[in-house]
Parts: sequence; structure tokens; C-alpha cells
Amino acid sequence: MSKKDNTAHDRWVGYRPDIKILDCTLRDGGLVTDHQFDAGFTEKIYKTCVAAGVDYMELGYKSSKKIYSRDEFGPMKFCDEDDLRDIVGENPSDMKLSVMVDTGRTDYKTDILPKEDSVIDAVRVACYIHQVPLAIEIMQDSRDKGYEVTMQLMASSIIDKADLASGLELVVKSELPTAVYVVDSFGALYSEQVRDITRIYNKVLDGSGIEIGFHAHNNQQLAFSNSIEAIINGANRIDATISGIGRGAGNCPLELLIGFLHNPKFKLRPVLECCNDVFVPLAKRIDWGYSLPYAITGQLNQHPRDAIKWRAGDTPDDCLSFYDHMIEEVS
Amino acid sequence: MSKKDNTAHDRWVGYRPDIKILDCTLRDGGLVTDHQFDAGFTEKIYKTCVAAGVDYMELGYKSSKKIYSRDEFGPMKFCDEDDLRDIVGENPSDMKLSVMVDTGRTDYKTDILPKEDSVIDAVRVACYIHQVPLAIEIMQDSRDKGYEVTMQLMASSIIDKADLASGLELVVKSELPTAVYVVDSFGALYSEQVRDITRIYNKVLDGSGIEIGFHAHNNQQLAFSNSIEAIINGANRIDATISGIGRGAGNCPLELLIGFLHNPKFKLRPVLECCNDVFVPLAKRIDWGYSLPYAITGQLNQHPRDAIKWRAGDTPDDCLSFYDHMIEEVS
Repeated sequence: MSKKDNTAHDRWVGYRPDIKILDCTLRDGGLVTDHQFDAGFTEKIYKTCVAAGVDYMELGYKSSKKIYSRDEFGPMKFCDEDDLRDIVGENPSDMKLSVMVDTGRTDYKTDILPKEDSVIDAVRVACYIHQVPLAIEIMQDSRDKGYEVTMQLMASSIIDKADLASGLELVVKSELPTAVYVVDSFGALYSEQVRDITRIYNKVLDGSGIEIGFHAHNNQQLAFSNSIEAIINGANRIDATISGIGRGAGNCPLELLIGFLHNPKFKLRPVLECCNDVFVPLAKRIDWGYSLPYAITGQLNQHPRDAIKWRAGDTPDDCLSFYDHMIEEVS
Repeated sequence: MSKKDNTAHDRWVGYRPDIKILDCTLRDGGLVTDHQFDAGFTEKIYKTCVAAGVDYMELGYKSSKKIYSRDEFGPMKFCDEDDLRDIVGENPSDMKLSVMVDTGRTDYKTDILPKEDSVIDAVRVACYIHQVPLAIEIMQDSRDKGYEVTMQLMASSIIDKADLASGLELVVKSELPTAVYVVDSFGALYSEQVRDITRIYNKVLDGSGIEIGFHAHNNQQLAFSNSIEAIINGANRIDATISGIGRGAGNCPLELLIGFLHNPKFKLRPVLECCNDVFVPLAKRIDWGYSLPYAITGQLNQHPRDAIKWRAGDTPDDCLSFYDHMIEEVS
């Protein structure tokens, strides 16, 4: 992996200690199962992440109970303090715990407790580009309560480059987050586009101390490679999930990312053990990961919602009819 | 996609007309099935490749009948002229037909007919770095018989860089092939390694008129992205297979590559139709494509043979035992 100013040899065998992994297996995987998990699942993921040396684990969302029902969604849709502690206890590990807040779908003022009352370390605020001002208000609230805050800028593949720079300037001015993530929500980006976007991040964030993060989707089998591309271009915060589980085509697989990073603090074996014990049986019941309908929405730079619906329908493997449907849709 | 000396905008929306696709569905897919295909399969692949605008189609091998039995392997292991014409007739299309010759496992002098007696257009000679002198003799024979010849340099991830330059110099001196392919046989290469290797190719082949090709394997979900990386670094000949079928973890999927290239001569729809009609049912019977045992051999830069054996055994999904086995193996 690239380290600036190093030779090709160092670059490959060595590692960049600044790179931090955030495991979002429970958070993004929860989108596949409405955060309903089998007994023991969440604890197993937590233990695996600790054993693997992951830096941050994102447990779920702080979603509004006015919008989402506890009858319909599992506990990690809301991440109430008691439910978190059922999984992590007092979190007697070096791994930091994070929750996601979805801008516009959260009662953050009441639902996020002061840091001293919570096992949570960090709050990550997800927003679209037009929501940056509201996301900054949410980050301010969480920072004031004592949390590390980060930001996920969704749908990076459809953000106008000038708007992106302008939004990032507001974020820099806020002096709030430790990291801002590029999010390839549609799994549409090719490597050169990842490079172009991270260059804008690099330029605007330069000198602010805010790190660049990357969250991939695997619509075109590019989640892992685009994460590498982001790393090469300076991103230090990388999202991954065990077995690549996540909405639609899923995310960058943790087991591949660890193999690339070469940092001895990350351990592959516990992740493979978790794949064996949990994800092999789960994959027989639940559909996630690369398939052609997701490749098609990725190629068209479209939200995966139509592909998700198609995969849940009567003819999930009929990619030709789905293609014809999507071409008609966007014409 | 990159075109030197162009702006970022041109680079992305435009296309590089020099890039040629070789479909090796029958050849590399044949390694999964011992070249035994269902009735109509080979004809369907041929028609799909013509309809998709593919430049070259590789039908199979010219293997020695002294080494391989016709009882055990299907006709495309040998590509006898009559068997080829059963599929392609006189090949009334613009698509060129290619066969692979495996250095050391072929009776090329007798089995490759003079060009005027064959429907074949091109002969691709696959070899390891130590076989370059023999591969040049085979290329000379095929060129003398009237064919376009190309060369596949296998196991690129374990070739010493000085040996690679030396081997390529011999090839340039031979003045025989129109293209030499980088082959990531182990699916071990990361993007920066693809770049470093293609740079050596670029340097040695510069001015010779020999083009660079790339043949990927998908062990680490990097087949498509590494093909893009090779293109960015100047490769003009890219291998792909429908639905990514191929030995072990398979190859770069044709349907993803066409989506990236933007050249209007390539058509996606016939490929999707073929995925529907042929590969969706086939995938229920035959195992190919990404899985963790292949990821593990890729990470370890090992030949996939142990993973192929594991996937065919009693516990194909037990990646943990396979990992322990492989770590022991290479220690």
C-alpha cells in the first residue's frame, strides 16, 4: 500500500499505522434484516471485532421512534443504552463504539445521552449534500455532549464537484468531526472517480486535521478495490463488514481488507472463524452481495432500491428483464 | 477511463477505441468442466460474443492427445478443425477466433494446421517465464503458418522483475506476437502491483508495436478492478468471460467490463441474455467465482489448486480449516 515518499518495496511490504478500520457489520448488515438478528449474533460480531483488532465498531442507528417502530425493527435500529450494554457490557476493550445518526430521521437531542452516561464513544452523522447544515447541528450537539463525531457524505457519485467543495468547507469551518467519509452509496464509482473525489476532500480538508474516510458498496465488485484506491489517495478511515454483508450488494469485506493492510494489529483468523460460524449459515437464508441487478444499478449510477426490490421478487436472477426495466426507468 | 493527455471529463465519458476484448468463456470456463459442455452451450457463447461486439473469442486449447484423452475431455480441449466448424461454421463475423497453446503440453507442429486450412485467426501461447524460449519457437511455427500470435506470461505475481524484463526483451527481439498478456494466475495482485508490472511491460515493449494484455483472476474480488488498472496503464487487450466463469475464482466478468468501456460497439444486452439463459442455471450445478478459500490462496500468492480441491471436497465453506491448512503448507 502506498506511503508517500517511500520506495515501491517499502510501500508493499510495510503498512501505514494511521489507517483505522470501522466495522459496520451490525449497522449496514442491519439494513438487510431490519436489525433483527438471531440470539447471540450481535455478541459474536462484537467479540470478533475485538479479536480482529478493529478500531471502531458501529453497532447501529439512533433512529427516531416516531418514525420507526420497535415492533418492526430490532434493538440496534435505536441503540438504546440498555440494549447496547446487553451486547458490550462496559466495553472492556480498546475498540471504540460508534452509532450512526441519519440526518432528518433522528431525535438526537433527546435520544443521544451525555457521554458520561453512555458506552458509546463516537457518533457518525450520515447526510446528503443538501443536509450538511443540519448534519453540522447534529454534530455540534454530539460534540457538546462529549462524543467524537464523524460525518458520512452519502451518494458521492451524484454530488456536483463544486457543491462538494462548498459542503466540505462548511464542515471544516465547524471544526467538529475527526473524519468525513466518502460514501459510494450506489456502488457506481470507478477507481479514477474515487481518486478525483478524494482529491477534492484532500484539498479542502488540508490542514484541518480532519481525516478522510471511505465507505464502499460492491455493486460492480469494486468495494475492496475502491477502498484500496481511497487508501492510496490518503484515506485513513475505512469501513468494512464481515463477509461483506450490507445493504444490496454489500460492502468491503473485512477479511479482504485485513489481508491487504499488513498491520499486525489486525487479525484475520477470528474473522474467518466468524464467517464459518455465522455467515455461511446466514447466507443460506438471506440475500446480500454482488449480483447482476446491483451491477446494473451501479453502472447506471442509480440508487439500488429497484435492485433490492427485484432481488426480493419472484425472478431475482432475471437480470435481462431488470435491465430493460431500468433502461426504461431512466430514459 | 484514462486517455493520456485528456482532461478528466473526456477521460470518463469517452472511450479508447484501441481497447480490444478477448472473450475466453469457453477456454477458461472449460477448465471448470474439463471442456465438457451441454448441447448448444458452445454455439450460444459464440453467438453471444458476436452480438456483444467482442473482438476475439478464444474457443479452447490445442492440447496434446498424447497427454490428454478425448474420452475425458470435451472437444474444445483439442480444437480440431471439424469440431470448431461445428460451432462457428466459416465464422461469418468480424470477430476473430483464437486458440490457446499451453507450452510443453501441445503437439503444435502437427496439430496446428496451416492458416489457409483453418477457421482460426490467432494462436495465443501460454507459458511460464522459464519457458519463454520454447514459447517463442511455438509462436514462430504459428506465425510461419500464417496466424496472428500472442503470448500469455503466466503467474505474473511470482516473476522476478529482472527476469520479466529479460524475458520480454527476448519476445521483442523475436518480432512475433502482436500482444503479450500479464496473467494474474493466482489472483494475488493489488492495483499498485498491476501498475508496477505493466510499467515494466511498457518500458520493454515501447516502440516494438507489441500491445499489452491483461488476464485477471477474481480471488480477491479484484479481477475487474485490476483489468481497469491495466487499462489505465496502457493495456489494450483485456480478457473477460461471461458471468466471470473460469478456473477457481473465475475471471473478469464481460458484463462489467463492457459497462466500463463506453465503446458503443460493445453491447451489454446480449451478454445479460446469455447470463439469464445459460449461466444462472449452470451456477446451480457448477462451482466457480469468488469464495474465501480462493481469497486465502490469493492473499498468500499461492496457486489456487489447493482451494479448487477444497471447494470440491466435503467442507467447501469451511474457510477456517482451509486457512489453517494453507498457513501450515507455506510455513
